[in-house]
Amino acid sequence: MNARPTERQIKAALDAKTKPPGSLGRLEQLAQRMARIQGTLTPTVERPRVVLFAADHGVSASASAVSAYPREVTAQMLANFAHGGAAVCVLAASAQAQLELVDVGVDADTHHLPRVLQDKVSRGSHHLGERAALDRAELEHALAAGARAFARAQAASCDLLVLGEMGIGNTTSASALLSALLGLSPALTTGAGTGVSGKALARKRQIIRTALARNAGKRLSPEQILSEYGGLEIAALVGALLASYRARIPVLIDGFIVTVAALLAVKIEPELSHALIYAHRSDERGHRHALAALGAEPLLDWQMRLGEGSGATLAIPRCRAAARILCEMATFESAAVSGG
Amino acid sequence: MNARPTERQIKAALDAKTKPPGSLGRLEQLAQRMARIQGTLTPTVERPRVVLFAADHGVSASASAVSAYPREVTAQMLANFAHGGAAVCVLAASAQAQLELVDVGVDADTHHLPRVLQDKVSRGSHHLGERAALDRAELEHALAAGARAFARAQAASCDLLVLGEMGIGNTTSASALLSALLGLSPALTTGAGTGVSGKALARKRQIIRTALARNAGKRLSPEQILSEYGGLEIAALVGALLASYRARIPVLIDGFIVTVAALLAVKIEPELSHALIYAHRSDERGHRHALAALGAEPLLDWQMRLGEGSGATLAIPRCRAAARILCEMATFESAAVSGG
Repeated sequence: MNARPTERQIKAALDAKTKPPGSLGRLEQLAQRMARIQGTLTPTVERPRVVLFAADHGVSASASAVSAYPREVTAQMLANFAHGGAAVCVLAASAQAQLELVDVGVDADTHHLPRVLQDKVSRGSHHLGERAALDRAELEHALAAGARAFARAQAASCDLLVLGEMGIGNTTSASALLSALLGLSPALTTGAGTGVSGKALARKRQIIRTALARNAGKRLSPEQILSEYGGLEIAALVGALLASYRARIPVLIDGFIVTVAALLAVKIEPELSHALIYAHRSDERGHRHALAALGAEPLLDWQMRLGEGSGATLAIPRCRAAARILCEMATFESAAVSGG
Repeated sequence: MNARPTERQIKAALDAKTKPPGSLGRLEQLAQRMARIQGTLTPTVERPRVVLFAADHGVSASASAVSAYPREVTAQMLANFAHGGAAVCVLAASAQAQLELVDVGVDADTHHLPRVLQDKVSRGSHHLGERAALDRAELEHALAAGARAFARAQAASCDLLVLGEMGIGNTTSASALLSALLGLSPALTTGAGTGVSGKALARKRQIIRTALARNAGKRLSPEQILSEYGGLEIAALVGALLASYRARIPVLIDGFIVTVAALLAVKIEPELSHALIYAHRSDERGHRHALAALGAEPLLDWQMRLGEGSGATLAIPRCRAAARILCEMATFESAAVSGG
């Protein structure tokens, strides 16, 4: 592999292009970022890939609904992803990105679905309000499933990775994780998710409060926190992120759930943050706290709150445009334009 | 042509898709906008087109420089556009958009350049500080050149139009136009352009002050204002916009220069604003005033200030993603997902 260009070399390459210096604004900053992560003056977004992990949650099995949708919707939506009908499928096609679907814990048999990779740990996590959501073996399997997905992306020469998730109940899990990681009250980290309010939202917060109380006063490691409150798809996201260490593949971080996974991964391996690009500021309540803890400045603020990796997938063309500016624009010298 | 869908029908189509209502945030608003303008529940961005008008300005011929670049750069950049090396070329290619280049007034022979359409009015406008920038016949030719470009786009089944411009000196022209249209001091409408400051910026403002003083106390029509201060490429932009009236083709408005052209066009024909989508908030000083006068809420705020149509071209993939959401996403019913 070639030596990484220095910051000064990247800046000089951009300033030599036929435009007033800095006149492409944040697109130039993104181009610099892509060059820095890929370690080249000619970064590419030719083989972007969206990897989506799906799993069910113990919390959605109980009578105390925390979502606007029933548990069955996880499997139904995975079928919708498999058949190309979901938002992330449309956005991935529009961005010319591959889409990989991985069942790491859906409470249904999904073998019959096209395009769904089987790496199932179990039929869903345990109820985080009652016990640890994942036991040790489950956590390790889910982390390994994420690492395997990353290895497949790398083998496919992926040059921009988007991580996504699907799992009814997973904002409950992510809010509990965020509260535990940052010591924040569930009131600050728990929002509408798929669209709950009033009593359902109060119930969601109460479940998280109960879950957090179980470990009050203990100092848990990020891995222990993940085991206590994490869903299988969130653990798979963390596994993929940990595997991305030093891989020179930019990882576009989606909304609330994936950002919480990124926070966990960065707590475990701080150097990871070098390769993470935060795609958007979600409307989900806890997201701002997760972003702030990571010092993240997202590319977009489009009030999205769907998950699935949809916000990050929407940002792929922006990353491609930034990369192509560095690769394809003429310089003042090559184009014989005065004043460069 | 089919009947236009109602607002309620567009909203219902979006809410039937497999996602919590509104969860795609501003992307849904953009999808609604595209449907409304194209007058269909299945809007498309399959043949987007960037049309770029280039011309020189009388003000750049004088010794009193108002730009960081010499007058020759207009022709040099047109050559750069023709050979694919400029930012807008790279962004258009990345967005899979056609790019049409039109010479409406460059002070050089550009016949030898590939891809450059010849619709030259003259070798540049007159010095706006000394006399009307365009006489009646010049203005009419430039407006007609813009209308012809729009007709070509329509004939090519263009379903999203980006307008762009190139002309050393044209922020001076646009600032004078904006001051005259809104009665604003040149201090508010005149900014760095290609990157001038200090004495050069003071000189630029003084030229505009002198130009405005010529018509102090007169009530000029938008057409008269365009004739007094407008460059040929700005008049061509206005001509293209006027020709777009009721064409059901969304027009993505770029930064400062194109927004001033849009303001002129909307002053002449207010119903035009229905089909205009403002792509971005530029860093150029006067842009905020032009946007405010149009009641515009731009899609992006990426601190761009290059012109060329670059900001609007960068927004094409976003419009495509929005359109495809309406066309391609499954509904709760079609995908058999619960809770729709």
